[in-house]
Amino acid sequence: MSFKSELIEKQNSMNAIIMDFLPKEGTYQKSILESMNYSVSVGGKRIRPILMNETYRMFGGKDSIVNPFLAAIEMIHSYSLVHDDLPAMDNDDFRRGQLTTHKKYGEALGILAGDALLNYAFELMSKACLENQESILSSVKAMHFLSEKAGIYGMIGGQVVDIESENKEISLEQLIFIHEHKTSALLEAAMVVGAILAGANTEEIEKISKIGKKIGLAFQIQDDILDVTSSTKVLGKPVNSDEKNNKSTYIKFLGMDQSKEQVEILSKEAINELIDLNGDSEFLIKIIQYLINRKK
Amino acid sequence: MSFKSELIEKQNSMNAIIMDFLPKEGTYQKSILESMNYSVSVGGKRIRPILMNETYRMFGGKDSIVNPFLAAIEMIHSYSLVHDDLPAMDNDDFRRGQLTTHKKYGEALGILAGDALLNYAFELMSKACLENQESILSSVKAMHFLSEKAGIYGMIGGQVVDIESENKEISLEQLIFIHEHKTSALLEAAMVVGAILAGANTEEIEKISKIGKKIGLAFQIQDDILDVTSSTKVLGKPVNSDEKNNKSTYIKFLGMDQSKEQVEILSKEAINELIDLNGDSEFLIKIIQYLINRKK
Repeated sequence: MSFKSELIEKQNSMNAIIMDFLPKEGTYQKSILESMNYSVSVGGKRIRPILMNETYRMFGGKDSIVNPFLAAIEMIHSYSLVHDDLPAMDNDDFRRGQLTTHKKYGEALGILAGDALLNYAFELMSKACLENQESILSSVKAMHFLSEKAGIYGMIGGQVVDIESENKEISLEQLIFIHEHKTSALLEAAMVVGAILAGANTEEIEKISKIGKKIGLAFQIQDDILDVTSSTKVLGKPVNSDEKNNKSTYIKFLGMDQSKEQVEILSKEAINELIDLNGDSEFLIKIIQYLINRKK
Repeated sequence: MSFKSELIEKQNSMNAIIMDFLPKEGTYQKSILESMNYSVSVGGKRIRPILMNETYRMFGGKDSIVNPFLAAIEMIHSYSLVHDDLPAMDNDDFRRGQLTTHKKYGEALGILAGDALLNYAFELMSKACLENQESILSSVKAMHFLSEKAGIYGMIGGQVVDIESENKEISLEQLIFIHEHKTSALLEAAMVVGAILAGANTEEIEKISKIGKKIGLAFQIQDDILDVTSSTKVLGKPVNSDEKNNKSTYIKFLGMDQSKEQVEILSKEAINELIDLNGDSEFLIKIIQYLINRKK
């Protein structure tokens, strides 16, 4: 099977799991269920659940205890996009060619759908901990790791600094802070949560955490590169947006050649370290190559 | 000691615990720490942590494992107020005489501070579960119960229906749905979490859950009554706001006399059921009497 077919198959499988875990039962609160479903359904590459699931399988994980966590991380990713799109933040009307949640359901429901997705991720994960009491410790560890990487010492922290850095001169150190927190933290968490749930040992978890950080950073530098080299048609969103929004990028600090070199170095290191871990990392490696060679 | 002194002492003790658990360490993300701290510090009666702590003590809980949960429930309550105050929701500039979070820090930080408080509540609770592994099961149960009561089947669900009911004719059933979810759910969760953490048995937890629901409903009907009978000076916020905002209230459905009677009946039942549980519920009962006899 070609990588592309395999990827689509895995995306479909993730979509089925995520949809399965989205809440459906309700009486008067139907609109919040609908807006949550919409926010998650509008697409996305499902990179985080795929990374989590592949890392879980790589460490010998075989059953479905990972499933609620796959859904939870995508809900957390989705809520962050819904809130990022709000008028007080990036004020975006469209995402992936569809109306953003607040444009479709109004701003109040945009805020509440985001809140509800974040909260529901923890409902799902804490329920999963209770349903598998023989592995409760690793489940709680996984949930705690994800909570930290989603919060002020992870994704939210990066988002705050990103917003405050717009139209300002920032240092390379600050740019790295933004990328490591805003994007990389949740990609790292995806892999680490998979490893923890599969019963990986402390040393392995530390190695996966480092690999996840490298992939996250490579992914983000590639994002900066595409914003300059791609076309609006290919990318599906306006190019040169960083320059227009006066945002600092790796290109600005390192130049195009060195940025491309960094992506190469980081991803090669990540791949070699994955191979050293001796699990079946074949698809994980393909995913990394896809992420850093992607054209959109 | 008078009830008032005792209450102030307990509020101070809760404040110290909450402040202790608020995040302080940061590098570039200082502003989110500051806005989170501000959102929680601007006051409030700390009813939820007090109810939780008293129920915990009533069931024989003696140590500090309840502390992170006391902080967590107040963070969840605070985040809900911060988001409620946003321009797209109630658009309030002041709360308890101080600037609302988004008026002080801007709307983007208002949204993010709310997100961060909700997320941090789960960081704290999941960390607490890991730090007390001998009681991990009850800690996870407590966290899961709180997560449900804070979400679409609890507080967020009530908030959504409340917003959508403005300027509309709604049924008494729908009004009860709003109150049971928007206000009562978190008050109930406070008591149930305290009971679970103290090791109460299933039957006791069910009884506490029913008591919590009654207290929550009595609290909310009293809120509706005060909106009509109190003065702006005493209440610290505009009176007759329900009528002005065209909001349905118990008074509208039941009339003033029957509403007052309902508060009496619900609180008497709650107090009697508490006494039947045979723990030291002295201060809990005083708190209930205070909540339903309050003038503001």
